[in-house]
Formats: sequence, C-alpha cells, structure tokens
Amino acid sequence: MDLQFQVLATDPSCGARYGRFHTLHGEVETPAFMAVGTQATVKSISPDELHDLDAQIILSNTYHLYLRPGSPVIKRLGGIHRFMHWDRALLTDSGGYQVFSLAKMRKIEEQGVVFQSHLDGARHMLSPELAIRIQLELGSDIAMCFDECTPYPADYAYVRDSMERTVRWAKRCRQAHEPSGQALFGIIQGGVYLDLRRICLEKLLEIDFDGYAIGSLAVGEPKQAMLAILEDLPGRLPRDRPRYLMGVGTPEDLVEGVRWGFDLFDCVLPTRNARNGMLFTARGNIQIKNSCHADDDQPIDPGCRCYTCTRFSRAYLRHLFMARELLAYRLNTLHNLHYYLDLMARMRVAIANGDLLEWHRDFHAAHR
Amino acid sequence: MDLQFQVLATDPSCGARYGRFHTLHGEVETPAFMAVGTQATVKSISPDELHDLDAQIILSNTYHLYLRPGSPVIKRLGGIHRFMHWDRALLTDSGGYQVFSLAKMRKIEEQGVVFQSHLDGARHMLSPELAIRIQLELGSDIAMCFDECTPYPADYAYVRDSMERTVRWAKRCRQAHEPSGQALFGIIQGGVYLDLRRICLEKLLEIDFDGYAIGSLAVGEPKQAMLAILEDLPGRLPRDRPRYLMGVGTPEDLVEGVRWGFDLFDCVLPTRNARNGMLFTARGNIQIKNSCHADDDQPIDPGCRCYTCTRFSRAYLRHLFMARELLAYRLNTLHNLHYYLDLMARMRVAIANGDLLEWHRDFHAAHR
Repeated sequence: MDLQFQVLATDPSCGARYGRFHTLHGEVETPAFMAVGTQATVKSISPDELHDLDAQIILSNTYHLYLRPGSPVIKRLGGIHRFMHWDRALLTDSGGYQVFSLAKMRKIEEQGVVFQSHLDGARHMLSPELAIRIQLELGSDIAMCFDECTPYPADYAYVRDSMERTVRWAKRCRQAHEPSGQALFGIIQGGVYLDLRRICLEKLLEIDFDGYAIGSLAVGEPKQAMLAILEDLPGRLPRDRPRYLMGVGTPEDLVEGVRWGFDLFDCVLPTRNARNGMLFTARGNIQIKNSCHADDDQPIDPGCRCYTCTRFSRAYLRHLFMARELLAYRLNTLHNLHYYLDLMARMRVAIANGDLLEWHRDFHAAHR
Repeated sequence: MDLQFQVLATDPSCGARYGRFHTLHGEVETPAFMAVGTQATVKSISPDELHDLDAQIILSNTYHLYLRPGSPVIKRLGGIHRFMHWDRALLTDSGGYQVFSLAKMRKIEEQGVVFQSHLDGARHMLSPELAIRIQLELGSDIAMCFDECTPYPADYAYVRDSMERTVRWAKRCRQAHEPSGQALFGIIQGGVYLDLRRICLEKLLEIDFDGYAIGSLAVGEPKQAMLAILEDLPGRLPRDRPRYLMGVGTPEDLVEGVRWGFDLFDCVLPTRNARNGMLFTARGNIQIKNSCHADDDQPIDPGCRCYTCTRFSRAYLRHLFMARELLAYRLNTLHNLHYYLDLMARMRVAIANGDLLEWHRDFHAAHR
C-alpha cells in the first residue's frame, strides 16, 4: 500500500525532514519513534496509555507472535489491532533479527533459516515467504522484508554474501506480498562496508519498496562507522519514501538519525531501561534505586508533564522499585516513553521552524 | 475522630444495613470492600484506576510500611495519601497479623512482640504504642489496635490469655492514640470460642472505639464456627459504629457477612487470584490459562462493564498470562476488583430496596 508519504518541511541546515504518512489505522507524523510491543503489548502499558502518550505508531515482533500465540490465532481473532485493542498504526519486523539474536540454534540456508524456539526448543524454518505470510495474517500496517542481520564484527566476504542473499530474499518477499492495506519496507544490509551498503540500496530500489530501512546498525560497531553510513545513505534514497533506522537508539542517536534525514526509529531502550529503574531526564539519566532519592519529594524531572511526574515523587518511585511492585515498571515506562515521544515531537517542531541545528546544540548542552 | 457513621437503611429481612461514614478523605458508603494496598500500592493498579473502579476506601499494611520505606519517611513526605497519590479514605491495619504470619521469628511479651523482619532478618519490637505511632505518622483515616491474631486451632486457655492481652493492648492503643483526623477501631478476638468473643466485645465497648472489628476469622476454622460468630456478635455491637470483618473473603463470605450486619471487609483474594490468573464471573470462576480460552473472542464475563471486559478477549488475556506479560496482572486485577466492588454496590442497592435476601438467593443460584 502506498503510504502517501509527504515531506512537509525540510530543515535548510541539514537533511532533517518533517513528514507525514497514512495507514489504514491513522496518520503518522515523522520523525517518529516506535515503542516496542514485542508480544502484542508494550510491556506494562495499556493501549489507552499509548494513546495518552500520543503514540501514533508502535512495533510488534513477528518472531514472538509466530511462536506464541501463533499468527493464525491472531488472524482468526481479527488481526493484531483488534487482538491487542490498538487502533493506530503498527509495524511488524520480519523475525530476522530475533532468529539471529534469540533462537537457540540457527542454520542459514538459501531457502530460509532453520532455528530452535527459545521457548521450547522446537525446530522451525522461517523463510521470506513465511515471514510475509505471518505479517499478512497479523495485519500490520507496515511489514518488513526477511533479512539476515549481519553480526559485528564480520569479514567483507561474509557480509557481501549475506547482503546478496538478503537482496534475493527481498525479491522473494516482494513477490510473496499480496495487495492489502499493508506496506512493505526493504532493509539495507552491508555491515560497516559502505560500498556494500550502497550496492544493497541500489538493488532494493530496483525491486521498489514502500519504504527503506537500515538494519544491523548499533550492533557494536564503532560510532564513526555508523555515522559514515548515516551521512551517506539518506541522500541516495528517494525523497518520497520513509526511511527507517532500525533498533536505534539512545536519545543522542535519535537526534543524530533525524539530523541525517531518517523518519522512523524503534528501540527497547526506553521501556527496558524503565523496568531496570533507569530514567531519562532533560539533564541526563537517573537510577531510581539510588539512596539519594529515598527522601526526595521531587518528580523524576521537574519540567516533565508525563503521568508519572505530575503525580509521584522520586521517593515513592524508589519505594515501588525497591519493593519490586508492579506499578514501578508501569510508572517508569510511562515516563521514559513520554521522554522519547516528546523528544520526537520537539524535533518535528524544530524542523518545521527550520532551526533543528540550534535545537541540537541546546539539547547537547543540557545533557552535559 | 468520629466517623459520623449513619445507617441509612436496614434490610427488614435480615441484619444487613446500608450506611455511610465520613473521613478527611471523603465519604465511604457501606457495606464496602477495601482493596489491599500492602506496600502503599494496590498491586499493579494506579490510584486513577482505583478512582475509576469507584473504590472509596482501601487498606494498607503498617508492618510492611514500617519496615520499608519507614513511616518517618512517609510522614516527611506528607503522609500516605500524598505519598501514593490517593485522595480517598484509607485504613491501616496494626501490623499484628503480619507479625504473626510473615515475620521469621516472633516472641510475644506483655510489652509487645519481638520479631525478625522477613526482608533482612533485623530484630524489631512492635508494641501497641509503636503500632499507633506508625499509623499516626502514616496518617491513615482509620487505624487499628495492635492485637494478637490467634491461630486456629488453639486451646481455650491459650485463646483466653491471648484475648485478655489483646484487651490490655487495646487500652494502651486507646491511650497512645492522639486526637487527629484518624479514627481508631478495636479488634474482637477470642478464636472459635463464642463466650470469649463476647467477653472481648464487652471489654472493648468499655474502652470505646470508633468502630469494631472481628479478627482471626477465615483462618482455617470450620465454616460453622465462623457462622456462629457472625450471627451472634453484630447484635451486641452499637448500631452507630462501623463493623469490620477482617480478612474476609470469598464473594460468598462477603454476602454472608453483609447479611449479618457487617459494614467493612478486606481480602487479598481478588488481587492475588488475579495475578494467578483466576478470574471471578457471575457464573463462577475461570482459570485464564486453560487452553479452552486460547481462541475465545469473548470477554471474561459478557455481562461485565469493567475496563478489561469492554476491551479485551479471553484469548488476548490468556496470551498475556502465558507470556508472563506485566499487563496481564493489571487487566486481571482490574476485572476482579470490579467484580468485588460491583458486588458490594449491588448489595447496597438491594439493602436500600429491602430485598437483600431475594438478591442473595439469585446470587447463589447464578453461582451454582
């Protein structure tokens, strides 16, 4: 499906763009951060809370839902939106990343990847065709091509062969995909090798996707290698298709990605760190378990307007966390997601105003 | 503090009464069920959700808050209401029950109970005076006397001596209590021995409390022994003071307690069972993990208007529970608390209409 992506404003001082695309489940303004809802739930958060946070799009994981409860179950129950009571946009990954990071065993063949479930050790094969069928059954608004997430470090020959297979898989994904309300994005691989990234990009453009993602970044490579790719690829991508920087990242990474012209991001950082008691603030991060918060009547961030900060003190949040109370994980998650989504909203405004670089300097100054 | 308890209606066919009392944190209509917020949080639930459930009073535990984070901390932060952002009524128990059920070691002396914390093994002594001081520091609307929760079974001589000590402790609690916005309730002990219960009741009436509770019921004694006490004691208690049946119980127990003229109840059953996947419905209980729910598009209870039932299917709730997702515990808890609070609301209406016994028959018929 054509997302009718429109660039509404471009920052004159850098590649950043403020845009908007359409799905069967509403509009998405970009740059956008997608909260990760691995098992058809953003951990600890209700769909109403995601609404209140003004989340316009979230992400869910094909690998997890394929294993449990199974995409046929979700299809019978009306698709993932109805299943989890989420009426806005949703992107599913292809399962590629999880097959490489979570499965107990994996064997890459031309046909697909044979792996053992991390839940019960059962053998499965995930292929481009199956990854697409699962995503069609889930009924997400944006599906991703099945790819090999190349590890870091990996030698040139391995990364080249892997990238070429990812391109062959991308063709099979495109062919297996069916006309529906679902868009399909291609994923550019090639590790830290810029020439391989460029070749992959060119070949994916020939296949023609509704959007383009960059995979296997922020997997341990030097920051400089990542930056070289962020600087180079956006200019080679069509202006009228969303660009998705997968699995990124820290607030600083997001700011960097936006600056170079990326439109979509996802990361477990705000949600996972929240559950570990690490909270983001405009002046840097805090560990809520630290004893300095035991008597502190202030909110996490005095300038924050989130549900948590407008109601609860650091002392109470520390108490909940130390007592391992379930409410701790929710309140921390609400705050961190608010921080991330507010960061994106503020960048959208800065781009529309044409002063992202100035905003960028202020952002870094506050964090130092 | 005088709660200005008013009996607004009495069911002509039984001892049940519909009433209302006042606290500094709002009115409470009775009969009322208090959700248990052990560590200054009803597990998995936010104060806003308790509001939406129309909870007018909740309970919190002195023992837990004394050990962590400590009542002086909560006092410095403005009291328990401000600490946990709860602006309605709150009752604290005295810690007596937890000292007997949770502490690693306990030694009962006339002065109080020496025990070891279940958290770190540290030695503490909880006395009537300390239990009152902690509750004053917490700033609850209703405080409970420090008592010995007599075990079942226990022989007559032990229960008599224990009850007499509980009465002496009750006198000390009354003396230690300070004029404030806080009411103080006495606790009737005496095990399964009706004569000891009556003696205890008489002695507590002489001391004069703002309300009267019955402790150490539903601790394993035969149903018949419990019923004998429920039938006998209410008629001996003053009409203008709330009657609190502590730690009770199942929906059936609540209906029984209301019928005999009790006004307040608390129990971990709806919240704990929710976290274990056991859900209450008008037609009996269900285990959400059972595979029969895997494909079931229906809500937990088609007649229920709770947050969970109006949004989510049994299939989704089962998926969350099997995947151990944090949202499972919250959605289950919201449903079970709605069931309990709605049950109380329906009984209040039935009493006001003077047809509780008829309602009672229908309730049991639906459950069979």
